[in-house]
Amino acid sequence: MEFRPIGIIHTPFSRPEGMPIQPAGAGGIRGTVEVFQEFQDGLSDLDGFSHIILLYHFHRSRDFQLRVVPFLDTEPRGLFATRAPRRPNPIGLSVVRLCGVDGCLLEIENVDMLDGTPLLDIKPYVPEFDRHTDIRTGWLERVGRGVTQHRSDVRFSEDGKGLIDASS
Amino acid sequence: MEFRPIGIIHTPFSRPEGMPIQPAGAGGIRGTVEVFQEFQDGLSDLDGFSHIILLYHFHRSRDFQLRVVPFLDTEPRGLFATRAPRRPNPIGLSVVRLCGVDGCLLEIENVDMLDGTPLLDIKPYVPEFDRHTDIRTGWLERVGRGVTQHRSDVRFSEDGKGLIDASS
Repeated sequence: MEFRPIGIIHTPFSRPEGMPIQPAGAGGIRGTVEVFQEFQDGLSDLDGFSHIILLYHFHRSRDFQLRVVPFLDTEPRGLFATRAPRRPNPIGLSVVRLCGVDGCLLEIENVDMLDGTPLLDIKPYVPEFDRHTDIRTGWLERVGRGVTQHRSDVRFSEDGKGLIDASS
Repeated sequence: MEFRPIGIIHTPFSRPEGMPIQPAGAGGIRGTVEVFQEFQDGLSDLDGFSHIILLYHFHRSRDFQLRVVPFLDTEPRGLFATRAPRRPNPIGLSVVRLCGVDGCLLEIENVDMLDGTPLLDIKPYVPEFDRHTDIRTGWLERVGRGVTQHRSDVRFSEDGKGLIDASS
């Protein structure tokens, strides 16, 4: 199946090093989603939502391994039990705060993507669908969930093979 | 960009009519995710998580319109302010309960996909990343969020053009 960008995400992060590894660690950092003009009509009514889900292409990701050492851990974990960017289908998912809509531009807060990231989809964040309670989070509980403090490090750097697999 | 299935989602829903329109309306309905064997190693550690995010291909969706009348409303809304399956990139997202992992098979609960849906990605559901508070949900608040009662109807049926755009 073939997918194509419907826009571009602009953020302050032109390089992977030092980026927050999740929106939870990117509190207050602003970015802009530029939706291509042909899709602008689809943005109606979006301004009523405080949070949106962005699906995007981990465009600097190449290849993948099925066991990865996440930023928040020292042991290899199964890839699908992590949020690492190098995946068989390198699709990223972030819930961000929507601060404003101006034509084709969405002002967003809590960005954790690279500048220039290709946007695949926007969905409204709806607590009845997306907010769950009574949660267990396996290995993440054991390592203490330092996500708000963590930044990406050299594991995330470009080494000719693309972004490596760190990132919880 | 090209993506390929990493597995297949099996559910009791062989036809779109009468399906729950979101996991929130699918309480207790069980399904199975069959991950292709080449990706089995990536499932390690997943059993520690109570909930997982499934990204999948709305494989019966064809075409899209930028304004749609969602199941929960009578007025057209911007496509990106809905969860309708007919989208420029027809990628579905559902948070489901993970009941068990047995080799390549994941037993899941609260399924709202068609049987045979191609799986694109599995991510662990992590409250720090995915659970948000202080939420506004625009048009959905005004229509009263009847999602747990709603089932898909003829708007969802196959009409030669694929699934149409209803579904909130």
